[in-house]
This record gives sequence, structure tokens and C-alpha cells, in this order.
Amino acid sequence: MSRPRAVIVVTGSELVRGDRSDRNGPYLAREALRLGLEPSRISIVGDRPQELEQALREGMFADLCLVSGGLGPTHDDRTVELLAAVTGRGLVLDAELEREIEGVSRLAAERQGRPYTDFRAGIQKQASLPEGAISLGLAGTAPGIVLDLEGRAVVALPGPPAELQRLWPRALDTEPLRRLLWRTSSPGHRVLRFYGVAESAVAFALEGCGGEGDGLEATVCARDLEVHVDLFYDGAGEARAETLAAALRRGFESELFAEDERAIEDLVLALCERRGFSLATAESCTGGLIAARLTAVPGASNVFKGGVVAYTDSVKEAQLGVPSSVLGRHGAVSAETAEAMAEGARERVGADVAVAATGIAGPGGGSEEKPVGRVCLHASCPGGALATTLNLTGDRTSVQRRAAVAGLHLLRRLLAQNRHEAV
Amino acid sequence: MSRPRAVIVVTGSELVRGDRSDRNGPYLAREALRLGLEPSRISIVGDRPQELEQALREGMFADLCLVSGGLGPTHDDRTVELLAAVTGRGLVLDAELEREIEGVSRLAAERQGRPYTDFRAGIQKQASLPEGAISLGLAGTAPGIVLDLEGRAVVALPGPPAELQRLWPRALDTEPLRRLLWRTSSPGHRVLRFYGVAESAVAFALEGCGGEGDGLEATVCARDLEVHVDLFYDGAGEARAETLAAALRRGFESELFAEDERAIEDLVLALCERRGFSLATAESCTGGLIAARLTAVPGASNVFKGGVVAYTDSVKEAQLGVPSSVLGRHGAVSAETAEAMAEGARERVGADVAVAATGIAGPGGGSEEKPVGRVCLHASCPGGALATTLNLTGDRTSVQRRAAVAGLHLLRRLLAQNRHEAV
Repeated sequence: MSRPRAVIVVTGSELVRGDRSDRNGPYLAREALRLGLEPSRISIVGDRPQELEQALREGMFADLCLVSGGLGPTHDDRTVELLAAVTGRGLVLDAELEREIEGVSRLAAERQGRPYTDFRAGIQKQASLPEGAISLGLAGTAPGIVLDLEGRAVVALPGPPAELQRLWPRALDTEPLRRLLWRTSSPGHRVLRFYGVAESAVAFALEGCGGEGDGLEATVCARDLEVHVDLFYDGAGEARAETLAAALRRGFESELFAEDERAIEDLVLALCERRGFSLATAESCTGGLIAARLTAVPGASNVFKGGVVAYTDSVKEAQLGVPSSVLGRHGAVSAETAEAMAEGARERVGADVAVAATGIAGPGGGSEEKPVGRVCLHASCPGGALATTLNLTGDRTSVQRRAAVAGLHLLRRLLAQNRHEAV
Repeated sequence: MSRPRAVIVVTGSELVRGDRSDRNGPYLAREALRLGLEPSRISIVGDRPQELEQALREGMFADLCLVSGGLGPTHDDRTVELLAAVTGRGLVLDAELEREIEGVSRLAAERQGRPYTDFRAGIQKQASLPEGAISLGLAGTAPGIVLDLEGRAVVALPGPPAELQRLWPRALDTEPLRRLLWRTSSPGHRVLRFYGVAESAVAFALEGCGGEGDGLEATVCARDLEVHVDLFYDGAGEARAETLAAALRRGFESELFAEDERAIEDLVLALCERRGFSLATAESCTGGLIAARLTAVPGASNVFKGGVVAYTDSVKEAQLGVPSSVLGRHGAVSAETAEAMAEGARERVGADVAVAATGIAGPGGGSEEKPVGRVCLHASCPGGALATTLNLTGDRTSVQRRAAVAGLHLLRRLLAQNRHEAV
């Protein structure tokens, strides 16, 4: 597949120092891919002029160069002046943009109780654009711009992710991008999601039936007990994508849980909603993570009623009604306690379905009999229940995250009448 | 400050496509900074040979080039062959490494029920290193290597973060890295963390007392209602760092909450522990996020007893004892309900201290009187309580995250007898 190349340049000192993870690069890469471009590189640089200039120079060789950050009012914000330099253009004051930034700055001055004159120099700077640049207007106080490079294009957007995402559609609507995207066609995309299988087994199966090539690209990616397969293809690769997908479906029939990009918490909520069930959680080692994942989904309240984070034995007894005899005989980390927690959550929260998790997240608290990573899960619904005990690897937060994912998948298996049911 | 330059090259198709956020780049950047190097660029590329080769070629100009990924057994794993190409070296089979990989592969073949011969070609490939390379041994099945480039060095490590982090200390212990790091000295690092102040106000104050330069670098970074200031300095900049820190301390005295890198959940747990208090949570709109953040801290069980995720009114009544009259008169999103939730959590969970959050995370559920983003928080301890109502901006998960952070800071303010108390 030969698609136009997109290069992404992200600038921010805190990003190149690793203080914070960049979110704009992945966002713009997904967008480029969706539009039929080939995201070939994400470069993260700080605000040193020579590093940013070098990255921008390389970006000029791409069909589309997407730049995030460095559009603010201070001297460290150098994206515009360096874009002017690498494209050999002068800077010109955009009067309309200047008025817009003035208006926003007056409000900010008032709110912050600072004299408006503090902002003056910054406004002139922010309203000066490379000759011929198309202004996308403001999101926040920083502008977005598009440069037309005759067949190629540059888009520069502000660094705050919400602002970048607000201006991006406006960039797509400009003449240079419309022209560029007229040449592309979105690639076909087929998604297969597996749970409970080794990444290498899936990769091996994929190789075994021909692997990549001939208009098809594949990625296999392990994420917290799930394996995500993405097949991208053009017209020539469509039939091969179908063959590969069919082979994976056959080879890992009982591990396949989705053929779209919905997360497991979405699937669980959809299964509950379809069956008219309300949902509750009872969490010890996951400490609220299962509930937090479920409630991150808009509309979770249609299904999810609530849960108990029962970190200590006394809370397991008082809030979930786990009998002290069960805790005494089997311990807090046991299949019996997990079952009592789930049944307790159904009763106390008044929900049809519940999942419970109890385990040892570490780093301390493990023993020979019950090592760090041991997690007991129990899911219960009207007329059925499923339980499992896992020995998870990784550090504390990995164990917690994987236990939460495993708990959600246990719910899915319990709720799906059969695994072929689309939800 | 002129420090040796470190360039980081991360390879992975799923990363350059934005399917997954890269964690290795930020980790290696922080490590480079800690060791007195200047992390100047993070390049993320896929497995196309020309893109990876170009990124590696650029990396050769740095004092230290750190490479993550592309060391696996398949044809897509091209880091080693391309490193050989760009350094002009041949590939040589490392017999000892070959035996190591063989051993690991036999176990994997057995576990996956696949014939060992499937692995043969991959082993030869993985055990072939550029001439003169130093093998760091295996983590998982992939090796790590160090190349000595006479004054400069290249380190290549496997992509899975846990494996990369396991082999990294071994790389530091090799002759080329020891020689390189002998020239560097760790920069001084001063940290100031603020809550409840605008990023621009802090940046403005910093500029007002001289800003960066003369051996001092500063980053100001807003994160979910917090503002993080990091000052890096060498010998010449130390006095200026002290002056700037003192000015920020004076200017934002009541907003300063930490001068180290501990997260707010760590501080809250430490404050509770110091005062001998146990802790509980009562969450509606945050859906378990506050409890999850607290329990992500190792040893949280010394302090945190548990919590209730009371998403629906019925759970607020049944599990937290919120009177139906309060819900009826003031609504679920009200200061009165938040107070009743916090008091209910203290009583039901049997904890000394509790925090409650109730609000409208959106995107639906808002009204003119109570818009999306409205969040009521209440924190209560023996002999005291604090409450606040916020109007947060952003999408659903941003509102949830910010509400959780605000709830934790409310606890901190309640628990700190005075704000100068170090915890």
C-alpha cells in the first residue's frame, strides 16, 4: 500500500523530558490513518530552536506535516517563526486574528487581575503568521494554521489536547487538505479482539496463513490479558483480510470476544442493558477500578447501580455481609470470599448482576500459599455464576489493572448466552 | 547548560499508528535527564525499514542513542540489522546468547504446544549481533545490546516496558555508558506543586523574576487542576533556582502543596497515617476513581478501609444512609447530599475520615440550574469538615478525573493542621 506520508511533530519540553505522556501524537496518527494517510513518524522535541527546526525540516518532506504545540505567547513558543524559516516565508500580522486574540486576552487579564499591557507583546507575536498561512481561528488563546506547500501541506495546532481536537476539523475543511485528501481513500479496517490467548500464538497463526503484504498490514498487540488484532487493507488486500480474519476466528473461536473497537466495559454494559439487568461491583484488591472503568462510559447509569470497595475484612463483613466464618476459614483471598462478596453486592446494592474481586496486588502481603498476583474473581447473575482464580504477573498497578480486566471478562462470559452473540 | 545529548528512537507499528501510547520514550527520557544528559528528541517510527533507518541515522549524531523495540524474532524486527547497517558493521552470531535464547524458546514451545523447529530461524536471527556489540542478556526472549561508538554509544532494548526496565540497569553498567556518564553530573532538580492556581499566573510570576537562562531551565505544566513547576539547574544556576523557588513560594503560598514528586494520593495517605486516622470514600460521579487512586499506592491498606460507589439514589440511601428527605429536597447533586454521603461513609465503613463526591460528569444529565461539570465535595474528620462546589470543564472522563483530584486535595487541606506542615 502506498499512501501519502504523514509526519507528526510534537513540541513541549515537559514531553521530551518524559514528565508527561504525549496524547496529541497518537490522536493525530489515528486521524491520519483514518483519512487514508500513512502515519510514518511521530517526533517529540522540546523548545530548543535547533531541535524543533530540524524536526520541522524533516516534516517538510512528508505529504502532510502535523505540528502540535509551540503556538503560545512566550518566547519559548517557536513553532510559527520556525515554520516561516523552513518554508522561506516572512511573518505577516493577521489583523483579524489580532482582534480575536485581543478580545480573549482582555477577558483573561480581567479574570487574573493583571494589567492588559502584560499581554500586548504576546498578542502581536501570536497574530503574526507565515505569509500565505490560513488561520483556523482560536481555541483558547492559541491559533491554528495551515500552510499550502503546493501538493503538500502543514497544519500547526495548539498543544492542549482539547484545543487541538477542536481546531482539527477546521483544518480538514481547508483547501490544501481537501486537495490532499481527495487523493486518498480510507483503508479498510478489520478488528479482532481476543481474551485469554498468548500474543505469540496469534502472531504465529497470522504468519501461518500468509501474514502481511499484498495490500494488507496487520498489527498484533497485547494489552492487559487481551490481544488486539488490526488488519488494514486496500482494494487488493480485502480478500486476504477476509481470509486471515476467518482463520483467526476459527483458530481462537472461544477467545474471540469482539470484532469492533468497543472496550470490554462497554460490552458488559451493553449485555446487561440488553438483558434488562442492573449491575453492582464488590472490590477488594482492585480498589474501585472496575467501578471506575464502568462509570467512565457515558450512560453507565442505565445499568450500573453502585458498588462496595471492601478493602478490609471488617468492611467485607459490614457492607457486603461476608460471614466472618468464611473469612476465618478460607481467608480474604479465596474463591469462597469472592463468592460471598458478589452475592453480598447483589443483595446490598439491590442489583441483578455483580462481580467480585479479591486478591494480593503486592508488592507486600504475599505468602507461599497465596503469592502476590493471586486474584479470585466471582460473577453472579440470576440463574448463574462463574468463578476463576488467576495468578497474575507484574507490579502492583499491573496486577490491579489485569484483575479489573479479568473481572469484566468474567461478567461478559456470564452474560453472553453464547459467544457468537453480537452485542 | 550544555549536557551530552540523548536521542530516543522508539519502534512499533501500533505506536506510530496511535493505537497505543508509548511508555518507553518518557521512561528513557526521565532516566537520561536524571543521569545528567539532555533528552533532546523522542522519535516514534513503525517497522518500515526506511523510516527506522532514518531515525537511527539521526540518532548516531547524539552522544547517546537509546532504542526501544524491534528486537523480536520476526522479519518485522529490524533494529539489529539496521543498527549494523548504519554503523557499518557486520552481523556475528553470539554463541552464548544463542544458547540462552534456545533455552527460553524450548520452554515457550512446550508451553504453547508448538514444535521447537518453529523457533529455529528466529533464534539465529535474535542471536546475531553487530560486530563488537555488548550483549546485555535476555529479558523475556529478546536481548539488549550496547554499541560502543568511541565516545558515543547506542543502547537497544526490548519494547515491552517491563523487559526494557529490567535490562536498562545492565546497560548503565557497561564500559561505554560508564565512560559517557563519567562526563556528566546529575542536574539539580527542584519541584514545586500547586493546586488551585492558573498555569499562566505561575508562568507569569516565573518570567517576572527572571525566568530561564544562566544555568537554569524551568517547566510549568498544568495537570488536572494542579500546576507542576520543575526547575533544573547546574552549579551556576543553583542560586537562581533558590531565588525563583522562594518567589513562587511567596507568591502562591496557600496554593503550594508539595515540594517533592509525591502524588496527592500519597500525601493524603501519609497525613492520615501520621494522625492515626483511617479513611473511607463515598463516590457518585467519580465512580470509584478516588478509591482506585488511593489503593494504587503500595501500603494503602494501612489507612484505607474501603468505600461505597453510590451511583444511584437507592444505593446512597441503603449503603450510606443518606436520608431520602435530603435527596428529595436538595437533589443528589448538592452540598447536603455530599455531606450526608461523607458522614454515612465514616459511620458505615467505620473510618475516622471520609470524602464524598457527587456531581454531573456528563455528557447528559445537566440542567440550567445544575450544569454538566457541577461537582459537590465534602470531607469530614473528627472535629472538622470542609466542603466545596465546583464547576468543572472538559469531557466526561476529564470531569471525573478532576473531581477525584479536587476530592483528594480537599482531604489534604482538612488533614493538614497547617499548610506548612511537611508530610
